[in-house]
Amino acid sequence: MDRLSCVDLNADLGEGYGPWNMGDDAAMLDIVTSANIACGGHASDPETMYRTLLLARERGIRVGAHPSYPDLAGFGRRRLPCTVGEVERFVAAQIGQLMAVAALAGTRVSYVKPHGALGNVAAVEADVAAAILRATRAVDAKLAVLAISGTVLEQLARAGGFEVFSEIFADRGYTAAGTLVPRSEPGALITDADAATGRILAFLDSGRMPAVDGSLVPLKVDSICIHGDSAHAVHMARHLKAALVAKGIAVRPFLLGA
Amino acid sequence: MDRLSCVDLNADLGEGYGPWNMGDDAAMLDIVTSANIACGGHASDPETMYRTLLLARERGIRVGAHPSYPDLAGFGRRRLPCTVGEVERFVAAQIGQLMAVAALAGTRVSYVKPHGALGNVAAVEADVAAAILRATRAVDAKLAVLAISGTVLEQLARAGGFEVFSEIFADRGYTAAGTLVPRSEPGALITDADAATGRILAFLDSGRMPAVDGSLVPLKVDSICIHGDSAHAVHMARHLKAALVAKGIAVRPFLLGA
Amino acid sequence: MDRLSCVDLNADLGEGYGPWNMGDDAAMLDIVTSANIACGGHASDPETMYRTLLLARERGIRVGAHPSYPDLAGFGRRRLPCTVGEVERFVAAQIGQLMAVAALAGTRVSYVKPHGALGNVAAVEADVAAAILRATRAVDAKLAVLAISGTVLEQLARAGGFEVFSEIFADRGYTAAGTLVPRSEPGALITDADAATGRILAFLDSGRMPAVDGSLVPLKVDSICIHGDSAHAVHMARHLKAALVAKGIAVRPFLLGA
Amino acid sequence: MDRLSCVDLNADLGEGYGPWNMGDDAAMLDIVTSANIACGGHASDPETMYRTLLLARERGIRVGAHPSYPDLAGFGRRRLPCTVGEVERFVAAQIGQLMAVAALAGTRVSYVKPHGALGNVAAVEADVAAAILRATRAVDAKLAVLAISGTVLEQLARAGGFEVFSEIFADRGYTAAGTLVPRSEPGALITDADAATGRILAFLDSGRMPAVDGSLVPLKVDSICIHGDSAHAVHMARHLKAALVAKGIAVRPFLLGA
Repeated sequence: MDRLSCVDLNADLGEGYGPWNMGDDAAMLDIVTSANIACGGHASDPETMYRTLLLARERGIRVGAHPSYPDLAGFGRRRLPCTVGEVERFVAAQIGQLMAVAALAGTRVSYVKPHGALGNVAAVEADVAAAILRATRAVDAKLAVLAISGTVLEQLARAGGFEVFSEIFADRGYTAAGTLVPRSEPGALITDADAATGRILAFLDSGRMPAVDGSLVPLKVDSICIHGDSAHAVHMARHLKAALVAKGIAVRPFLLGA
Repeated sequence: MDRLSCVDLNADLGEGYGPWNMGDDAAMLDIVTSANIACGGHASDPETMYRTLLLARERGIRVGAHPSYPDLAGFGRRRLPCTVGEVERFVAAQIGQLMAVAALAGTRVSYVKPHGALGNVAAVEADVAAAILRATRAVDAKLAVLAISGTVLEQLARAGGFEVFSEIFADRGYTAAGTLVPRSEPGALITDADAATGRILAFLDSGRMPAVDGSLVPLKVDSICIHGDSAHAVHMARHLKAALVAKGIAVRPFLLGA
Repeated sequence: MDRLSCVDLNADLGEGYGPWNMGDDAAMLDIVTSANIACGGHASDPETMYRTLLLARERGIRVGAHPSYPDLAGFGRRRLPCTVGEVERFVAAQIGQLMAVAALAGTRVSYVKPHGALGNVAAVEADVAAAILRATRAVDAKLAVLAISGTVLEQLARAGGFEVFSEIFADRGYTAAGTLVPRSEPGALITDADAATGRILAFLDSGRMPAVDGSLVPLKVDSICIHGDSAHAVHMARHLKAALVAKGIAVRPFLLGA
Repeated sequence: MDRLSCVDLNADLGEGYGPWNMGDDAAMLDIVTSANIACGGHASDPETMYRTLLLARERGIRVGAHPSYPDLAGFGRRRLPCTVGEVERFVAAQIGQLMAVAALAGTRVSYVKPHGALGNVAAVEADVAAAILRATRAVDAKLAVLAISGTVLEQLARAGGFEVFSEIFADRGYTAAGTLVPRSEPGALITDADAATGRILAFLDSGRMPAVDGSLVPLKVDSICIHGDSAHAVHMARHLKAALVAKGIAVRPFLLGA
């Protein structure tokens, strides 16, 4: 486990829409080292993207595109009945839109991480994962992929020659199979900052994540995801970061360089 | 008037939305040499863009982005109360979206032409024209600009070092000042194919466009625009193209090369 | 089979959106006796509703609300992952919107018919059918229900004390179970006007619909649905109506009175 | 000034959209006596309407429809280029939608108050004010109108035989003409609870509102509006209500009965 010396913190940001905000982006951007920015699928519009990208640029934060099923009403948490071809097109369009606004904001998009239901489907279904990767490569072959550790998307991205980074979740429960406990089930969300931090520190020591059934699941990790839209997101993020630093683990972007 | 030996024909295409179509894109793409493709502002979505881009690629037609005020309900024909900054962002986002889907469709976007009310405002207001040009340059500095002949946008694009092409309209009336007669006024639309063709041939002979008041307005021309959404668009386009060819004027893209 | 002396013809109309049209509403309204009008779910907006309602009023055509999953992109043909409660709310909101615009247009909404995927789900799932009926009753207890013949919705509406009318489809194939052949399968759509008319006449004689497997399915009928958005809708509707009249079957609304 | 013995407090509520919230509706509904509920123009959707209507019903709060230019991106604060006919249609559709969801929630809509830019335009332009009133009457002739005190809408509603109530704003500055200071100008927003309360108490004593130029403007008042979306809305509302009660002014709905 050479990686224990450093880790990235990522959060889903820029999730407002028009006059509406979600979470405290500026505060989260003071903590995390990578920002997954909504690109019009589950949230955001050109103005919201621009504001969020400026905040990220001011802080030198690495930016990723966070494409989603086109579903504002469901915040991208519902699987929509889309064909694989439709997934390919909307993922490309969303990445392209964010890249263009990033250029205007004087920054750029470095990686792609599918959001919500799209991420969950791509974790287990090869055709959807492949569609996301085809779209990503077509739009910009240099884009890295941030995938949930242990998923089909992670495997396919690696096999396809993408630069791939693996993430685990600080605030989500795991099944014995290494997948996330669905939001509708008990143990899905960890809202206590101490509990979330404790599990992550235990995991970083052992490389094994405690699952809801008490078993330990081996997972690779480059980045730890903290959801920016939960009520205690900022507190949890600060708490976790402080604990990591206290333990001598550097918090820094998985992608270095410009 | 060295250009009289050849001219480009362009049309506004890909203006469907979801299950709805507008005009006959396949037929128009068999006639024109440049296609201004809607990119989500006044019309279109990733699926519609993709289908239209594939049709254009099959025929080797040059593709331009056709950004608009974000106004599906008004088809981009109404000036929305947007700030200059908002114009910059939505134009960038729309171009970026089309570029991304074009990459997926195996083609690419070569130029930008603002649609409808946005084009009319950019024809006379320097700050809006400049916002469109900043967005265009930020997204891809190699993009050319297709501007209405004689407008502020054309001047600023030229002054800014863009590759600029000038268009006139086959089916729209002109004022003595060289601007388009507003759609709400008499003489705005020319629906007769013979009348439209006659004026264009007269103009190409003289370099002067007959205006609604009988005066003749000198205009530069690289491309002739035919609206793809009018009822007789396909007929008028065929008629005009045949008349140009009969007169020994080659119809070919203003942008050559790949 | 006392009803053989008369039958209603209904069509799905007002299915444009903003600047886009679908089918030829004015022509269809000259033929049918009941109009299912889109109310913002799969299509339409207040302007489109208003125009369609005026056309219906001018011709004295009976008007029904045609609520749908909120899915413009999929034209209401995809089942969205909505809860039963969400179905209840969007159906109520859509009916209410059409009723309000109808009041402005000097007409009123007399019945409800769920559209596309919502209609197909309500044909077999009691909880969705019940949600549609609760929404209908809450908005206006006098609204009748137009249900696909032989479905769960039809049964529940009858049991619930609604005035219920049963429809069959002129242009859709039937399974031996009396349900519609899904659009993705062979035999789903009947595009030939003679074939469509022939089946309907055979059915009206016998009360039994020929299914794709050759069997005959007994169905109750108050109204025959012709889709307004198919290419040959107007031709097929005229053809069918003429054949009905020639056979001495009066074509008139299932709902009489004001 | 007989009315000094009691006054209504109203707030703009239900202004979320999909997963996004705006302000603290439950807290505001514990304070105000009338709730202007967004109906899909500047904010809201059937689910948001339903939740807000349930909260209002639980507390026995009077409910009004709060129609707006259809402009989620601009939160209804921008004047859109709509015709008078379009205003008539979208206002009717929005009221109808809220009425239908209210029926489902076991409550009903009692009055109409135009939101944001629509309210500002209707304050000074008779044709827009008349369009709102035509739509209101067509949908339900029993609906009352809540109008900004001293406006054209108030005059026309009174002349048209509507039950009309007049509102003043606790947190907005007034011009010497009795209109609101535009949000883009100094003095538009009063964010200090003491300052807002002090002006209202002074006004209720004298019937004259202090304007930004120091003059005093006579205004009729049935209700005081507090914006639910400002950061300190809940605090200001509680402060103002306590001060009114301390002064012996009853806070109760302008519309009594069921």
